Amino acid sequence: MILTVTLNTALDITYRVRSLRPHASHRVSDVTERPGGKGVNVARVLAALGHEVTVTGFAGGGTGRAVRDRLAGTPGVTDALVPVAGATRRTIAVVDDLSGDTTQLNEPGPQIAPPEWNAFLDRYEQLLPAASAVALCGSLPPGVPVGAYAGLVRTARAHGVPVLLDTSGEPLRRGVAARPDIIKPNAGELAELTGSHEPLRATRDARRRGAHAVVASLGAQGLLAVTPEGHWRATPPALLHGNPTGAGDSAVAALLAGLVEHRPWPDRLTHAVALSAATVRAPAAGEFDRATYEELLGRVAVAGVVGVA
Amino acid sequence: MILTVTLNTALDITYRVRSLRPHASHRVSDVTERPGGKGVNVARVLAALGHEVTVTGFAGGGTGRAVRDRLAGTPGVTDALVPVAGATRRTIAVVDDLSGDTTQLNEPGPQIAPPEWNAFLDRYEQLLPAASAVALCGSLPPGVPVGAYAGLVRTARAHGVPVLLDTSGEPLRRGVAARPDIIKPNAGELAELTGSHEPLRATRDARRRGAHAVVASLGAQGLLAVTPEGHWRATPPALLHGNPTGAGDSAVAALLAGLVEHRPWPDRLTHAVALSAATVRAPAAGEFDRATYEELLGRVAVAGVVGVA
Repeated sequence: MILTVTLNTALDITYRVRSLRPHASHRVSDVTERPGGKGVNVARVLAALGHEVTVTGFAGGGTGRAVRDRLAGTPGVTDALVPVAGATRRTIAVVDDLSGDTTQLNEPGPQIAPPEWNAFLDRYEQLLPAASAVALCGSLPPGVPVGAYAGLVRTARAHGVPVLLDTSGEPLRRGVAARPDIIKPNAGELAELTGSHEPLRATRDARRRGAHAVVASLGAQGLLAVTPEGHWRATPPALLHGNPTGAGDSAVAALLAGLVEHRPWPDRLTHAVALSAATVRAPAAGEFDRATYEELLGRVAVAGVVGVA
Repeated sequence: MILTVTLNTALDITYRVRSLRPHASHRVSDVTERPGGKGVNVARVLAALGHEVTVTGFAGGGTGRAVRDRLAGTPGVTDALVPVAGATRRTIAVVDDLSGDTTQLNEPGPQIAPPEWNAFLDRYEQLLPAASAVALCGSLPPGVPVGAYAGLVRTARAHGVPVLLDTSGEPLRRGVAARPDIIKPNAGELAELTGSHEPLRATRDARRRGAHAVVASLGAQGLLAVTPEGHWRATPPALLHGNPTGAGDSAVAALLAGLVEHRPWPDRLTHAVALSAATVRAPAAGEFDRATYEELLGRVAVAGVVGVA
């Protein structure tokens, strides 16, 4: 199975309103809820692609119960979340009917107590031997040490399990130094890590900091990958309109699938770009459109990049 | 005990953000949750005033559990909510740190099935014999007949229990015709009911439609009461700044307290205005400031109104 870690799981709530106006009162016409947090999203996509996935991290409170109830109804996903006293955070996406634009409200995560963190570490060590790959995804809730991902990367490597890290800020900086197999920063995360806004230079620099492979997601311009096997740019066939929520998580899912299937890098990148694009085009945030995905697989351009040291 | 009915209970969530901007992403710095819906708010205020209160209506889903868990921790309040399959709605108040202004997002209520409505009617009939007064408060969730309050008013009157109705629109129009003891519309609800924007004329007209007493809440101008015993205007000592959320519910609580204590109308109105004002001035929405309440009791002006037929 593939293991995804989501320390800051979420109950993702989407509201539809006519048009959001500050300081006014709004009737919500439609409410949808689903389990969220980057690693949970990655797991859902992997399961839809036919992989067996185990989800770990934390869940607590009524919102945590809602997350777990919904995970239990997701075929291919096994729930190995660790219960905590605090409540799993909510995220609220308010979508305007008129413009289709989204306003996002993100609650802070629950405070994690030291015994809860230790319970997670035990669970993680128990799960690793059965994992073909592990993805460490998203932000850290309060109480989790800032070097958490660095430790989790080292533990995975000690078990010989390849590890992908998808986070930002100081947890990314420290995690990279522990030598993960793959990191997947977006342009902003990459610039924050390296100080450079030039993607090729920044991607190369991120690799020097410790990551074996760096796959930078550059929005509509696709992916830039710097790996031990070579350097590539993979681009979608055209500018895509839609909701980019979850596109990065879909790219992570495709990279993990390619990793466990031992596919060559250009093939992994093709799948990652096609799956991202199919997520942007899907009507619901974070879902992917399977027909679009399969159609795009033949139309993604992958080109070698020269001049990378 | 005093019985309050909240057919559309809510989990009231308050978020603090720096400043809400449409189509941007926001970190919520603080989250508070409390049980809501008008009748639940009325019950909390009555309990704080030392009354025994029973709360009925509907609760369901994880949000309903959160409401009931919190009610269980409120001294003086007894939970007699009827479980339903649908989830209790959330309301989200987003408060800007910079301006103090609030943006409101209100979910629709759960669909109430006919057997659930019948279960509520049974519960209501069981509770009435022990009630010294009943308050019917707020909107109707989907599935509840629009004439619901009219029926509940008639049942209360058949049991000899005085009944206060605080709702709006068609449920108010039909409920008034069933001859409740008191209605407490605000200026907008009164204008919608009667077609008149002139408060004195509209209040008199509302009485003609069936209410024994009409107490119109006119915001900063206080209350206008047209009752069988006389007609009064009760005004706070000065324009009050603060959060008006819950001020109307506090007025309802004071009117019920005055009713069960058989206090004369001018005294009831004094308490209602002072309690409303103390709610506007409290730092948390829907709470009241006890010192302000007691201080204002001596400073509310109540004057007889002449020229009301």
